[in-house]
Amino acid sequence: MKNNQSPVIYLDHAATSWPKPSSVIEAVQHAMLHEAANPGRGSHRMAVQASRVIFQARKELSKLFHVHNPNDIVFAANTTAALNLAIKGFIREGDHVIATAVEHNAVRRPLEYAKRVMNVQVTYVEADEEGTVTAEQVLAALQPNTKLVIVNHSSNLLGTIQPVEQIAESLKGKGIKLLVDAAQSAGLLPIDVQAMGIDMLAFPGHKGLLGPQGTGGLYIHPDIDLEPHMHGGTGSQSEAPEQPAVRPDRYEAGTLNTPGIAGLGAGVRYVLQEGTAAIYEKEWRLSQRIMEGLLQLNRIRILGPRLGSPRTGIVSFVAEGIDPSEMSFILDQHYGIAVRAGFHCTPLAHESAGTTGTGAVRASVGCFTTEEECDRLIEAVKEISAHY
Amino acid sequence: MKNNQSPVIYLDHAATSWPKPSSVIEAVQHAMLHEAANPGRGSHRMAVQASRVIFQARKELSKLFHVHNPNDIVFAANTTAALNLAIKGFIREGDHVIATAVEHNAVRRPLEYAKRVMNVQVTYVEADEEGTVTAEQVLAALQPNTKLVIVNHSSNLLGTIQPVEQIAESLKGKGIKLLVDAAQSAGLLPIDVQAMGIDMLAFPGHKGLLGPQGTGGLYIHPDIDLEPHMHGGTGSQSEAPEQPAVRPDRYEAGTLNTPGIAGLGAGVRYVLQEGTAAIYEKEWRLSQRIMEGLLQLNRIRILGPRLGSPRTGIVSFVAEGIDPSEMSFILDQHYGIAVRAGFHCTPLAHESAGTTGTGAVRASVGCFTTEEECDRLIEAVKEISAHY
Repeated sequence: MKNNQSPVIYLDHAATSWPKPSSVIEAVQHAMLHEAANPGRGSHRMAVQASRVIFQARKELSKLFHVHNPNDIVFAANTTAALNLAIKGFIREGDHVIATAVEHNAVRRPLEYAKRVMNVQVTYVEADEEGTVTAEQVLAALQPNTKLVIVNHSSNLLGTIQPVEQIAESLKGKGIKLLVDAAQSAGLLPIDVQAMGIDMLAFPGHKGLLGPQGTGGLYIHPDIDLEPHMHGGTGSQSEAPEQPAVRPDRYEAGTLNTPGIAGLGAGVRYVLQEGTAAIYEKEWRLSQRIMEGLLQLNRIRILGPRLGSPRTGIVSFVAEGIDPSEMSFILDQHYGIAVRAGFHCTPLAHESAGTTGTGAVRASVGCFTTEEECDRLIEAVKEISAHY
Repeated sequence: MKNNQSPVIYLDHAATSWPKPSSVIEAVQHAMLHEAANPGRGSHRMAVQASRVIFQARKELSKLFHVHNPNDIVFAANTTAALNLAIKGFIREGDHVIATAVEHNAVRRPLEYAKRVMNVQVTYVEADEEGTVTAEQVLAALQPNTKLVIVNHSSNLLGTIQPVEQIAESLKGKGIKLLVDAAQSAGLLPIDVQAMGIDMLAFPGHKGLLGPQGTGGLYIHPDIDLEPHMHGGTGSQSEAPEQPAVRPDRYEAGTLNTPGIAGLGAGVRYVLQEGTAAIYEKEWRLSQRIMEGLLQLNRIRILGPRLGSPRTGIVSFVAEGIDPSEMSFILDQHYGIAVRAGFHCTPLAHESAGTTGTGAVRASVGCFTTEEECDRLIEAVKEISAHY
């Protein structure tokens, strides 16, 4: 057993990645010490330098997501803010929206709000027991007033990877836009917005992209004009009573998080160097290792895709007769293993998984997780289960 | 003349303060290294520690603003986000809002948006040539459907300090709420939300509070229920389709900027130690020094309050015959002095000041600015003026 002084075994990467590459910490510090004037709010050298740091991060992200024009990527405080912009900025009174039953509350709650105040209709397409939604199901849910389809690229509870390309393909020529929530996939799964037919892509800065908290963003296809979600100063066209039309300014009112975005740029550079394929391969192997270990125990049920299937680095499970909160508490207090118990902001996914009453324990690996850490988790769950 | 290698003389504190106290840099780094799990999204120790860091910052801010319950302060990405929440979350179809003519675009643009889509009426109360608005003027603008008065505590162009207490006093018993934009005053002017009758207070983290960019927040009186501006996961009541009622969760959907807020907490501690009175006194003396120096030059007109009057550390000026952009460019390139030229996101204030056609040069001091730096500015402006 680990004591309280031992270093933590951090298996909560689906919430936020930790530790960060040292280049990320350094970039944040460098920005605060040398570049943290207000980008776009002055022409003096330090302000220009801050703008450059931000443009550099935009360029790295464009490279990662195959975005043609970096200015089609706008920064936001987190994925939730990006999704609020995408959803509320796009849909109009009376529209119909299709989403999946495994959406995070960052999608569900804006949609429920739109239902309440904008007379918007929403269909949540059911997922199978592994959490998958098919293109055929999406097609079957179409209505004449369907304007937007929202797909969670990878479920934050189940690790399931949705067939985004097939869904995009099936929507082609129908004038319906596709918004992808890449909260769990950015930096891990290959994302090419052009080849995959993604019209909007919301991503976090602080998970798979290894940047600091307080960062995230939205790619917006150049043909889409969203109502801005934030209204305010942009440092440009100050005299205009409304947001300027030019990107990224239109969607970035208020002072940007220069140090955070500097760190995000460094995180994305790290990901580009390692390659998403290598990172995915590593995380997938670790997730399989955890699954294999847990499946040998009695009374453990693992949610999401079966062993051997693709999944992101998330393994959620329930141990018969042990409350997930208690399991995670003991893992933390007695073993120094950080996992998360509960509903993970995705109640509908729990309906798919049949864990609505209890929630689940979620272990999620990151690109610095080791096999030994996975084995420690398995051992700990084994010991805990044996006592119940 | 300074060459390009010399350290910058940073006189753009109204945009963002720089440098930051070393305790702020250290707090950001410490959070990234040791506490940057996802606050409120897990019960493991590092997540609990992140929550503690954030609650500590809330407590420091409560102390500074005399807020009874720290949970009535919610964090936002910047003042603009806080103002969007306050304005759009409060006003309803058909309401009348009073604001001042010296509001920043972070107030004006949400109001113009509300006019366009919510049939809201807005009166901008004119300011006198020093930028001041009186309580009598606000009273005179009242309509039966007036629900909200918005006052810029201190103009980001003029440095003028508005009589917030008198305005609050004049609104008493009328059921009209008062929102104060403290973008330029937080950390500098004494703010006691209870004694001053402020119902909502929007503040930046990265200006007078000396925290990093990417931070800010809103105090919301416990009697006010705003429609959330961000809808999404809060880590609490995951099963509910809408935002939970509990504060601060209700208004803080999405992952918070833990390292940034850790830095903000350290910045506020610094301000509390120094005391706002001492910081104001220092910045006021520096602003007077700049004014005295510039007033001895020919052809310089200084905007805002006259010499000897209260003002925040902002001195905006125009030099007859010299374009403000050119002035600021030369100050930067030849003297290494960072100021800002242009309209500063506040076009209506330029109407008050009679500088709509040209904009102005804004020099703004901070708590680390020295007298020598002010003198360098004066000398530089003198030299530049002599060449035109």
